[in-house]
Amino acid sequence: MKRVGNGTVILQQKPSVISSAAVVGKTEGEGPLSKEFDRIFTDDTLGEKSYEKSESALQKEALIRALSKAELSEEKLDSIFAGDLLNQLTASTFGLRDTEASFLGVFGACSTMALTLGLCAVFIESGASECAAAVTSSHFCTAERQFRMPLEYGGQRPQSAQRTVTGAGASIISAHAVNRPSITAVHFGRIADFGIKDANNMGAAMAPAAARTIFDYFSDTGERPEDFDCIVTGDLGNVGSELLLSLLKKDYALDISKNHLDCGKMIFDCEKQDVHSGGSGCGCSATVLNSYFINRLTKGEIGRIMFVATGALMSPTSSMQGESIPSIAHLVVLEKPDTVKEKQ
Amino acid sequence: MKRVGNGTVILQQKPSVISSAAVVGKTEGEGPLSKEFDRIFTDDTLGEKSYEKSESALQKEALIRALSKAELSEEKLDSIFAGDLLNQLTASTFGLRDTEASFLGVFGACSTMALTLGLCAVFIESGASECAAAVTSSHFCTAERQFRMPLEYGGQRPQSAQRTVTGAGASIISAHAVNRPSITAVHFGRIADFGIKDANNMGAAMAPAAARTIFDYFSDTGERPEDFDCIVTGDLGNVGSELLLSLLKKDYALDISKNHLDCGKMIFDCEKQDVHSGGSGCGCSATVLNSYFINRLTKGEIGRIMFVATGALMSPTSSMQGESIPSIAHLVVLEKPDTVKEKQ
Repeated sequence: MKRVGNGTVILQQKPSVISSAAVVGKTEGEGPLSKEFDRIFTDDTLGEKSYEKSESALQKEALIRALSKAELSEEKLDSIFAGDLLNQLTASTFGLRDTEASFLGVFGACSTMALTLGLCAVFIESGASECAAAVTSSHFCTAERQFRMPLEYGGQRPQSAQRTVTGAGASIISAHAVNRPSITAVHFGRIADFGIKDANNMGAAMAPAAARTIFDYFSDTGERPEDFDCIVTGDLGNVGSELLLSLLKKDYALDISKNHLDCGKMIFDCEKQDVHSGGSGCGCSATVLNSYFINRLTKGEIGRIMFVATGALMSPTSSMQGESIPSIAHLVVLEKPDTVKEKQ
Repeated sequence: MKRVGNGTVILQQKPSVISSAAVVGKTEGEGPLSKEFDRIFTDDTLGEKSYEKSESALQKEALIRALSKAELSEEKLDSIFAGDLLNQLTASTFGLRDTEASFLGVFGACSTMALTLGLCAVFIESGASECAAAVTSSHFCTAERQFRMPLEYGGQRPQSAQRTVTGAGASIISAHAVNRPSITAVHFGRIADFGIKDANNMGAAMAPAAARTIFDYFSDTGERPEDFDCIVTGDLGNVGSELLLSLLKKDYALDISKNHLDCGKMIFDCEKQDVHSGGSGCGCSATVLNSYFINRLTKGEIGRIMFVATGALMSPTSSMQGESIPSIAHLVVLEKPDTVKEKQ
């Protein structure tokens, strides 16, 4: 492992994503990625008595499915990195409390999938873990209640607002395997705060963090946007994505418009599904990465992606106290399997 | 780095704690460890408009003091691992948003000091970081408002309850240095849930997690309690400490009564200061470790300690929904500097 420049960590042994799973709720299951998911729950309660318990059940389901797809018994898993948006990470801690692995709770708001994945990669390459999982989730109903208004209130939201994805994703990371996608670099971001205070416009708050992390990566490595098939952001949505492209062009002289994709824009059909500016929440990039992208990387249909998930690091309390929204973006580079590469 | 047994990670290159700082509030400054702290704020608001902002200021102060004690410019710091008890970790994210280092938010409730310290050690030894900080805090007034009742309510608490410490601690970790204490092993714990539901008796909820992590470490390494000068728990307090000793004896045949210390019992004079069962909160073990213990390790007055910080992983929402309290304990082994060792 080698740290270069402003914080990019190059993984020489290239840990592999040996399995992944994505489970989602009803609305996500009706979206354009419907066929990619491992399970669609038509009842967003999952039969639980509270939405918080439903979200915990989503995480458990994602982890169990990822393990079973790799025909891996739970005892093989020695470390779990997990987090979510709920206060004190209860979706993760309650959802995963029955597992016997070391549990490392992390918080990166909607950047959690990249944060957990990056930590897994560092732990695997360093020998601190032999088999680690990155797990995260979000749920529309828990997020609305905690961050905005209970659903019963029926509040109207502006067009810049995004819809929190109901879903959970899990990746299982282990030592390099020739037939599985690998992680070749990670970059843990710095906090960016550009003074934006509108909690209904998260995309705008998070775009500057994404721009900085992407720029830092390119300047650390000397690579260029065209070295990637896709540059995938987490959940900037329509407003934030546009802002990111223009920020990168104007402030950093980088044009990623040809290969930029955003999980928040991909998971819903923004016009037909009445989701305003797209999807958001930890579960958004977690479910899209662990289905659509990992599936295509595994098959070699995509060669190399930069996965940059962003998070808005505020709380309802900080917003009520008039604070701006600090944000962060963590980055993971994923590549298709060696075996696929050789066939070309 | 080598992972052995049930999850103990042996650090062969022994990263060093090159600096540390602890800053506290008024009540903590009146306690038995008064002379150990780097700064005592007699006004718990720190001049800020809200207690949440005060807690952020505590973290910033701890980090700045730790850097300045090592005569280290902020640019040298490349990674920060931080967390706290506030929803969405706002004490950390707002307190540390001006720093230019990679920011990795973690949540381990009151186990955060051990979790951040352990992650720093793994990152330094693996090469993912060259200079990392572990920072955490808690504040009596923010914790009361968020987890129990606003102070104005004047609620009475049972004798098993603990007082959340107002304070922050920071450790700076770098490659092995001969004249500074080093980290020789870490063990990230598993979640334990023994069905305890009383949020006024955190010590009892957390003791089983501490017992399991301590047992796992000894069984992984073949070491014995007498191999440590002190086995230091985070904030079990009076009730939890008694329970830990009896659990270890009864269920695991381990007697640590001769060298067990608890930061929650050390930071206050439980009889004179009306703090019931002792101190608690992320800031409790963070301030005691980063003052009393690091000071004594540095001077060689203590040779080797096992630092086991415990966390209760519930939220007010999970408690209201009738859930029990899952808990966790992370462990870090610290040793006195080589130079001191040689002089003996």
